[in-house]
Amino acid sequence: MRVLGIDCGAKTTGFGVIESQGSRSLHLIASGVITTSSRDAFPSRLTKIYKGLKTVIEEYSPEEVAIEDIFYARNFRSVIKLGHVRGVAMLAADGMGLPVAEYSPLEVKSSMVGYGRAQKSQVQEMVKRVLGLTEAPQSHDAADGLAVALCHLHTLTTKMKMEIVTSSAPSRQPRKEKTHQNRS
Amino acid sequence: MRVLGIDCGAKTTGFGVIESQGSRSLHLIASGVITTSSRDAFPSRLTKIYKGLKTVIEEYSPEEVAIEDIFYARNFRSVIKLGHVRGVAMLAADGMGLPVAEYSPLEVKSSMVGYGRAQKSQVQEMVKRVLGLTEAPQSHDAADGLAVALCHLHTLTTKMKMEIVTSSAPSRQPRKEKTHQNRS
Repeated sequence: MRVLGIDCGAKTTGFGVIESQGSRSLHLIASGVITTSSRDAFPSRLTKIYKGLKTVIEEYSPEEVAIEDIFYARNFRSVIKLGHVRGVAMLAADGMGLPVAEYSPLEVKSSMVGYGRAQKSQVQEMVKRVLGLTEAPQSHDAADGLAVALCHLHTLTTKMKMEIVTSSAPSRQPRKEKTHQNRS
Repeated sequence: MRVLGIDCGAKTTGFGVIESQGSRSLHLIASGVITTSSRDAFPSRLTKIYKGLKTVIEEYSPEEVAIEDIFYARNFRSVIKLGHVRGVAMLAADGMGLPVAEYSPLEVKSSMVGYGRAQKSQVQEMVKRVLGLTEAPQSHDAADGLAVALCHLHTLTTKMKMEIVTSSAPSRQPRKEKTHQNRS
């Protein structure tokens, strides 16, 4: 299973592609950022992000896409802007026929570090460890993209395990009440 | 000048195309809505809106696009969703090389009816009158799309008039102070 994780941002959108072969075999395929300049008109910044993500999808052929949800406590205007960016990110994935999963920042951090209030540097460090990299991704945004992809793979693995447990467990059928037959 | 006006909505996106030949000659070219079902996944609803708007642009060849801004007093979650829709609408316009103008609901209503708290039915009625239609557009959303296009054309006309007034006004050069030359 190959997953593309995206951490949306109007200025910097981070992404990471990870391949999983079994629950313990995780490989970094690619990671990076798409940056835009605040001097450009907002619609053309959206086009740059959209085209950048389409190129990533075409180049690395992920089977699923995971996108980080919006952290609602932020400034209202910037939250709306982020909504626009998420819209074009979803469009890039859906336009290529890929399913899109969404995870809140809390879920991503909890999945990586164990608690939802983790620092960005802690997420970076965990991404490095989990993927067995010699050094952590330099960009916070690229690390966040990878973290979203890892969170999705972790969720998929857990779901699969749950299904195996459920299907291999002895089926519980309602006990039949003993009936006393009266022989006549 | 041909303008496409868009009133974004996750469920219904209204649009209207208007051609202006001089400040008093306004013609309705097309209007309608793009609807999506809440039973579909949100990314695929965004794709439907994006493709729908691209088709409108390809079919009616507007030179500029005007999009209604978000009314911030609404529910936070639905505002974010609307941000996603606006993102793909901007992308559809920018991808075709068209400039995008934005107008707040207050600006659109003020431009059409004269005050910002006008009812939707009043906007519908004014759209009918301004465009000389026999009946008002049946859909509020299509009427809103037309109203955004009219607001943009109105703004462009006003700007042009201002420029004419400015350029035809006698140029005011700073008065030179009289100097007294001492003849020696």
